[in-house]
Amino acid sequence: MRFYDDISIGDEYRSEPYRISQSEIIEFGEKYDPQPFHTDPEAAENSVFGGLVASGWQTAALCMRLHVQSSEETATQAGVGIDDLRWHRPLRPGDSLRLRSEIIGKRPSESRGDRGFVTTRHEGVNQDDDLVISYEATAMVRRHSDE
Amino acid sequence: MRFYDDISIGDEYRSEPYRISQSEIIEFGEKYDPQPFHTDPEAAENSVFGGLVASGWQTAALCMRLHVQSSEETATQAGVGIDDLRWHRPLRPGDSLRLRSEIIGKRPSESRGDRGFVTTRHEGVNQDDDLVISYEATAMVRRHSDE
Repeated sequence: MRFYDDISIGDEYRSEPYRISQSEIIEFGEKYDPQPFHTDPEAAENSVFGGLVASGWQTAALCMRLHVQSSEETATQAGVGIDDLRWHRPLRPGDSLRLRSEIIGKRPSESRGDRGFVTTRHEGVNQDDDLVISYEATAMVRRHSDE
Repeated sequence: MRFYDDISIGDEYRSEPYRISQSEIIEFGEKYDPQPFHTDPEAAENSVFGGLVASGWQTAALCMRLHVQSSEETATQAGVGIDDLRWHRPLRPGDSLRLRSEIIGKRPSESRGDRGFVTTRHEGVNQDDDLVISYEATAMVRRHSDE
């Protein structure tokens, strides 16, 4: 288990790729982002994307999955927030998403000695290494002293 | 259909509530955010949340759903990005999420005359009107001239 004190600015992680299917895109779109370019392959052809694309929220959620799976188990207590999220290009059926992550900040909690805040920059890239999504995530992580 | 030119700073929207179930929380957690406080009700009791809570990405995705359903159909071409997303308190099984949204910015595209950028502040609140999530979303929207 990796605690706040075990994490250093500059630490990097790389995930395995995850290949997304058309049916996964449509299923998520119908439930969470019912716009034609996420749910209807024919209607999507007339969108700026020229075809079906994953909801940007699905792309972000897949990054979360890749992050949890790729980094050593961390004593994360809760997510705090996200800054500077940008969708650079769409994720299409059959595309593979990989995550590159780097710790860019950490600071102890001022009010609670048993925890600290860790900020990670995440970049999701496709099979051509083109940037799909980027964002900075801040989470609350337990310190060793809490064991 | 609502175009860029039909949107004014200060426009407000209110969604209907959406009640989330424990099984929906676990299903999303297992697929996209496999941490015990999103997937295992017993293990979640020992987390800082004291029980199962929805993934923050599921809360955000539900806001997207409420946004699409609550506002007049808009000529959105693509999402650009998200700023200042904060998770203020968790969404628990049986909680209802509602969305309050306000247009806080718009500017025409400098490179393409057929579109503009619209920024909306979203606040997701629970059945007690407590703030659950807040963020600012920027989207690319078609202008009338593109009809």
